Amino acid sequence: MSQPRKPNPARRSERSRQAVLDAARDLVSELGYAKVSIEAIAARAGVGKQTIYRWWPSKGAVIFDSFLALSESEEGMSLPDTGDLEADLKIVMRATVAEFADPAFEAPIRALNTEIIGDPALAAQYREKLAGPVDEAKKERLRSAQRAGQLAADADLDLVLEVLYAPLYQRWLHRSGPLTPQYADALVEITLRAFAP
Amino acid sequence: MSQPRKPNPARRSERSRQAVLDAARDLVSELGYAKVSIEAIAARAGVGKQTIYRWWPSKGAVIFDSFLALSESEEGMSLPDTGDLEADLKIVMRATVAEFADPAFEAPIRALNTEIIGDPALAAQYREKLAGPVDEAKKERLRSAQRAGQLAADADLDLVLEVLYAPLYQRWLHRSGPLTPQYADALVEITLRAFAP
Repeated sequence: MSQPRKPNPARRSERSRQAVLDAARDLVSELGYAKVSIEAIAARAGVGKQTIYRWWPSKGAVIFDSFLALSESEEGMSLPDTGDLEADLKIVMRATVAEFADPAFEAPIRALNTEIIGDPALAAQYREKLAGPVDEAKKERLRSAQRAGQLAADADLDLVLEVLYAPLYQRWLHRSGPLTPQYADALVEITLRAFAP
Repeated sequence: MSQPRKPNPARRSERSRQAVLDAARDLVSELGYAKVSIEAIAARAGVGKQTIYRWWPSKGAVIFDSFLALSESEEGMSLPDTGDLEADLKIVMRATVAEFADPAFEAPIRALNTEIIGDPALAAQYREKLAGPVDEAKKERLRSAQRAGQLAADADLDLVLEVLYAPLYQRWLHRSGPLTPQYADALVEITLRAFAP
């Protein structure tokens, strides 16, 4: 006689949590942040509203976690290091520009950025959990270039990353110019010239 | 016998319009964009809601115009041109950094930026009416520097302005680092190095 299978609350709970995160991300991409409600996330995930409020205090918090879940799968990220800084950065920047030019990718990132601007606590969380680790991986590559004499040894690496990425970020946010591979290359060339040894 | 003074509808209308714009800007600074309503603007300006809707289709439109009214008083703006590009840009960038570090100034600009991110039409209007004319004044100064051999003659001036301003913009928007005179100077030095003749 087979044992009746016992429900496993921990596993069911993790499945619900994952469904909520997937639903939050999908809905933000489809509708934009402003039109997404906790009710809609609950309905899409097939859970009750109270299930969401048990784990997250607000819509912003669920959506932030849904992005965090994405980047956690990239754990241990690192940049290519072929020894040629310019070539390596151009690969990375062309990929970044392509992502920001892709409507499916950029919609949720735009929603997150809108939240961050108005919410200093969320901005701090974003820096600590998302931007910080990614920036650290980039700096690791820049330090390797400094050791190889391809970048000024005294360069402020936070400033290097700002000069490399902020123009793209602003152009994307304001839709003020084309996001092309040529633009990615130009940013790399300008940055390396600015911080040449 | 003195003539009874006739009401002047055009003048009264302009006074109401100005009161609405002042109220919109003040309320955004005090409360933040999200908490400002058409009702609150009308009450503060001492006009009826219908008066606002007669001139503007939405809250975003009133607030945008209230910013435009500010910059119109700077008509014919130009950058200092002492012949020393680095010194002139440092004056301008130190003033810009100080503005963004000032809570009273930055609050309405932050509200406007939040709107622009989610509204491509408003972003286009912002570029055409606000950012565009200001950028043109900056480019005029850069062209003068190109003629004087202080900046590469073939430099893409849109890219020069992005490298100069976007790092500050991103740092301010994400509150990701200090906004100091030293930072202003560093951005000028880096940009001039990147686009040296």
